[in-house]
Amino acid sequence: MKSFDELSKEFVAKFNTRHFPASPQSLYEPAQYFLGLGGKRIRPVMCLMGNELFDEISPDAYEVAIAIELFHNFTLIHDDIMDKAPLRRGMQTVHEKYDEPTALLSGDVMLVTAYDYINKIKLANIHKIIHVFNNTAKEVCEGQQIDMDFEKKEQVSLPDYINMISLKTSVLLAASLQMGAILGGAGDGNQGHLYEFGKNLGLAFQIQDDYLDAFGDPAKFGKQTGGDIVANKKTFLLIKAMEIGTSAQRKEISELIKTSSPDKVQNMLSIFKACGVDEAARELMAKYSEIAFQHMEDIAVMSIRKKPLEELAKFLVQRDF
Amino acid sequence: MKSFDELSKEFVAKFNTRHFPASPQSLYEPAQYFLGLGGKRIRPVMCLMGNELFDEISPDAYEVAIAIELFHNFTLIHDDIMDKAPLRRGMQTVHEKYDEPTALLSGDVMLVTAYDYINKIKLANIHKIIHVFNNTAKEVCEGQQIDMDFEKKEQVSLPDYINMISLKTSVLLAASLQMGAILGGAGDGNQGHLYEFGKNLGLAFQIQDDYLDAFGDPAKFGKQTGGDIVANKKTFLLIKAMEIGTSAQRKEISELIKTSSPDKVQNMLSIFKACGVDEAARELMAKYSEIAFQHMEDIAVMSIRKKPLEELAKFLVQRDF
Repeated sequence: MKSFDELSKEFVAKFNTRHFPASPQSLYEPAQYFLGLGGKRIRPVMCLMGNELFDEISPDAYEVAIAIELFHNFTLIHDDIMDKAPLRRGMQTVHEKYDEPTALLSGDVMLVTAYDYINKIKLANIHKIIHVFNNTAKEVCEGQQIDMDFEKKEQVSLPDYINMISLKTSVLLAASLQMGAILGGAGDGNQGHLYEFGKNLGLAFQIQDDYLDAFGDPAKFGKQTGGDIVANKKTFLLIKAMEIGTSAQRKEISELIKTSSPDKVQNMLSIFKACGVDEAARELMAKYSEIAFQHMEDIAVMSIRKKPLEELAKFLVQRDF
Repeated sequence: MKSFDELSKEFVAKFNTRHFPASPQSLYEPAQYFLGLGGKRIRPVMCLMGNELFDEISPDAYEVAIAIELFHNFTLIHDDIMDKAPLRRGMQTVHEKYDEPTALLSGDVMLVTAYDYINKIKLANIHKIIHVFNNTAKEVCEGQQIDMDFEKKEQVSLPDYINMISLKTSVLLAASLQMGAILGGAGDGNQGHLYEFGKNLGLAFQIQDDYLDAFGDPAKFGKQTGGDIVANKKTFLLIKAMEIGTSAQRKEISELIKTSSPDKVQNMLSIFKACGVDEAARELMAKYSEIAFQHMEDIAVMSIRKKPLEELAKFLVQRDF
């Protein structure tokens, strides 16, 4: 059984190649540029780990892992256009470095290229893999649309928020594991448990992300905290505070949102603590982590095979940075 | 053997259904809205005709035909964003009726849905179909990118122009026929001839389109002529005139491009005629038509089976409207 780091190195060695023709350069150079910005490659490695949970890693698992990473990068290029984001991993986004039409089109061609890799796998699994891949792809689009819809809304309910982060983030982690499992010959029961493991892990991770953006140690977190508060982002903390806060606290939050005073972050954090939403976030993270680990427990393979995934999960949801 | 009209009715009966889930409405309503704008559905019917050339029409040919039409509509939604087009078939484009992020995302989800339909076909053909579909999809993206690149260029060569319209328009017609043929059990030779038939027909059609925009009868053409001239579009006529015109004519064209005088169209048409590019366009159309029909001739099936495709081809390239 290989660790995340080992599999990551193996994946990167295969992925760091040119995925597109040379010409027209104006279309393919931007696509290749974006892939060159790097990333943790968590999703494709999860596909490999889901595969190794049941069998030796098959060549097809690498093809699907590459397809997953191309799909993920396609969504990032298009999300950056929609969010008008100037930077990604500290570098210019595609629409910023080139222009919007080029970013749109190089994203499109990256999605088509993802299907090229899927098309390389053995016939026996292709219907199932495309089925899971497509359902997930549509869910990720749905999550992005719902997230954009939230920006126009006064208030968002907690179940709606959980549904959104599930679609936008968790299902791709879950499906990456499941597709690896399908290629490893896992039965429906094991596939289902692995999927739920990934989904709940993703939810825990996303809520932790909201938490760390507010309460994390900037030195460890790697970026300034409070960014979500400054941007008035509807995070778990804000939504929960608007749900459980007193009417005075809710009023104060509503007024803080309208301001951009220098102590906005500090004041919002005080309200969050007074409402106890920091504690609520930690509890919910713990709850989703627990559900995730229970599903891992229920997968019918020898526990030694589960080690790398359990370690990855612990790393992802117990980081304090 | 069924005529274009018969197959068109059969296709539309299957296509005019809902292709997306109900929710989130903000994502799927715009996608379904765009499909509701209609269209001639030429490409999917060509898939059915390519299929019937070799065998009775199979259910899989309908699945691929739907995938092709969804793909075509995905490209239109995204092209409309890139071209900032307000109208499509006389109705608001998606980004105009909703907004750009929604148009981008509903296009993405339409492309994914196209692969859902491909995923329904029998395993025996799926690798081949995805291979042709993907290559064509990438070529169509390349054609759009090259077309956008042309806008920034002073001058475009004729071979570059032919390559662009081939990628942007012809290859999808060609591939639609070929995918039908693959599902009909055609051999590589017949597939190749049918592909070339569609590709050359597409080239003849596109050059005719350039010709009719300048010299067509507005009453029959259905829209005002001269639109390409007003927009300074690099059409076959303009490119060819800049190639074969005298230096005085070329200078006059360059100056006309900078103006927007009321007699711009009339003056440009006079130069086109003086250069003889109207005649050159008719000759090139005839040449591509001839090549197309030669390839049709070379397909090894009984000539009675070729009738509907030959009639469609004659209709497409001998229209004077």
